[in-house]
Amino acid sequence: MSDLSPTLELACQLISRPSVTPEDAGCQQMMAERLEAIGFKCEFLRFGEVDNLWAVRGEEGPILAFAGHTDVVPPGPESAWKFPPFEPTFHETDEGEMLFGRGAADMKGSLASMVVACEEFIAQHPDHQGRIAFLITSDEEGPAINGTVKVVEWLEERNEKITWCLVGEPSSTSKTGDTIKNGRRGSLGCELTVKGKQGHVAYPHLAENPIHTFAPALADLTAEKWDDGNDFFPATSFQVSNINGGTGATNVIPGELNVVFNFRFSTELTEEILRQRTEAILDKHGLTYDINWKLSGHPFLTAAGPLVDACVESIREVAGIETELSTAGGTSDGRFIAPTGAQVVELGPVNATIHQINERVKASDLDQLTEIYKGMLVRLLK
Amino acid sequence: MSDLSPTLELACQLISRPSVTPEDAGCQQMMAERLEAIGFKCEFLRFGEVDNLWAVRGEEGPILAFAGHTDVVPPGPESAWKFPPFEPTFHETDEGEMLFGRGAADMKGSLASMVVACEEFIAQHPDHQGRIAFLITSDEEGPAINGTVKVVEWLEERNEKITWCLVGEPSSTSKTGDTIKNGRRGSLGCELTVKGKQGHVAYPHLAENPIHTFAPALADLTAEKWDDGNDFFPATSFQVSNINGGTGATNVIPGELNVVFNFRFSTELTEEILRQRTEAILDKHGLTYDINWKLSGHPFLTAAGPLVDACVESIREVAGIETELSTAGGTSDGRFIAPTGAQVVELGPVNATIHQINERVKASDLDQLTEIYKGMLVRLLK
Repeated sequence: MSDLSPTLELACQLISRPSVTPEDAGCQQMMAERLEAIGFKCEFLRFGEVDNLWAVRGEEGPILAFAGHTDVVPPGPESAWKFPPFEPTFHETDEGEMLFGRGAADMKGSLASMVVACEEFIAQHPDHQGRIAFLITSDEEGPAINGTVKVVEWLEERNEKITWCLVGEPSSTSKTGDTIKNGRRGSLGCELTVKGKQGHVAYPHLAENPIHTFAPALADLTAEKWDDGNDFFPATSFQVSNINGGTGATNVIPGELNVVFNFRFSTELTEEILRQRTEAILDKHGLTYDINWKLSGHPFLTAAGPLVDACVESIREVAGIETELSTAGGTSDGRFIAPTGAQVVELGPVNATIHQINERVKASDLDQLTEIYKGMLVRLLK
Repeated sequence: MSDLSPTLELACQLISRPSVTPEDAGCQQMMAERLEAIGFKCEFLRFGEVDNLWAVRGEEGPILAFAGHTDVVPPGPESAWKFPPFEPTFHETDEGEMLFGRGAADMKGSLASMVVACEEFIAQHPDHQGRIAFLITSDEEGPAINGTVKVVEWLEERNEKITWCLVGEPSSTSKTGDTIKNGRRGSLGCELTVKGKQGHVAYPHLAENPIHTFAPALADLTAEKWDDGNDFFPATSFQVSNINGGTGATNVIPGELNVVFNFRFSTELTEEILRQRTEAILDKHGLTYDINWKLSGHPFLTAAGPLVDACVESIREVAGIETELSTAGGTSDGRFIAPTGAQVVELGPVNATIHQINERVKASDLDQLTEIYKGMLVRLLK
């Protein structure tokens, strides 16, 4: 493919840098050079081994922040890829001209679209209203400790508030813009240890088998209807990810059982209610247990307002489709930004191949995404 | 303690040999020398790394076989012992004069009583009826593959049938002879793999969580009343010894769940019925699974007859108590002998400290046990 568009050219430059979490591999430096050339002030914030970039253009007024990450998940066995994962390659498939490479969809393509959208918008509107910002980390796919969460703390110390945040996560299902995420479910994790009394399987009356005492509680927990969701959220879900009990010996009743589970919860519920209802079920069955809760993120929702309107209208204009507002799916760094009061929307390319071998995105989709982002800049800051 | 009785002297000689499974450490050789001196013919049968001894006295008629094992379970940390585990030590306690040492109760004390009982019986009745035999292994506490089961096969090839088998396992609860085991529950093991579909906890509708699908089946299995037992057996018990599912990651729904469980079952049920009823419960819940059953032993019962009568009467005469017939507790090598048609009874010292630190037996109990065994020889073979 010759004569690459500016978006595709920048996407290729980013993909060719093997920035597996927490590595940035120079991506932020490259983005910063492009942004400084159009009047952004850039600050490099390194926390631990994580690179973060905060770039802002303009002196006052509402901030539209593009948020994203330069890190990618590991490529897995390179030999399984059709093309080397860090050598961006265009290839014609049944789906059209595709750009292959780790990060093509999640989310170096989005980063390229963001930068080029700003370049084109500022060329046309050098004296735009408000401010444009970039909040970029290299720790979104990893522990998420030294990335966005730290930058948000740093912004709060400086009394900087993001007004509208556009996260470039691949939100789309089959066409660019067919789905945007205007909220995310909360995520609440739990490590539970059910206590029993070890013994010999031949003498169960001298032991207390925690697998047995937990069995009816587990059945209740999996059968429980936690809520019905609401207009914006699917019903809260409960999933056990790990259960481990036993000494390995076949004739020993174990002394304890370890269970790890997770709630993805709607705005109908709170962390406190989930904890209370879970423990009430455990208590109803007379269990003795240790329990350790860990909140990964409260649910958040950007129900309506200028940011959602700008998204919906720009998608309608550029792509000719009505977007669907969704809160389904996993967590994103939006969970760290929403609690500051920002409106948060995720809008990015099709997510069908993210985290997989042969990650790819339709080439023309990235150019379309640039147009959509530009349309939002126009609507919010012209 | 000076002037040890013959039984205690032999018990000390056996305990001082560190015969942790599968080691015999010369115990069988020592027993064989004593038995050959009173007219037994001894055959040493080594299978794999296991030593076995078959000794028989007499040419024809019913066989009363003493069955037992020279191997002991590991002592654990020696520093935790009051006295070194392989240095037999007499010590006065609240319970009386006790013999401390690994194997004192399980079951070198019984072996000493068996040998001395035979010596004294034969001195008085050199022309006894029938035959006296010893079936001794060094693999009772281990995998039990190259021990009694192999000797029984070898006997069957020679068309030798044990008529009455007295297993020296420590059957007693608080006084020698207060309990004898005239049968054992069956033991049926099972490895179950419940199949699901791996996925992300945020997208449970795309996965199938085997922990969740198994939960109600587990609750049913643990709540099931398998039988009521009968006059000789307690109710059949079901115990899960191991349950393991999960990748370790907290956001992944596992693709399968592994469960290991065990039935200890009465003569009211059979292996086939337990398999059918278990699988019916799994099928009722629509589970997809692999299942691997392993029978460790059918239940057996020596309900009445000359052997039980001889036990009960000899205990009444020597100890002045009425013994209780029981089928409770774990498996023993009796499970391999009973299927040949033999009557099988387990009678040995108090089992309160077996497999523990500071294993011990009351010194006078072993002398009493010798008398009880001798009384049985008199009743069955005089």
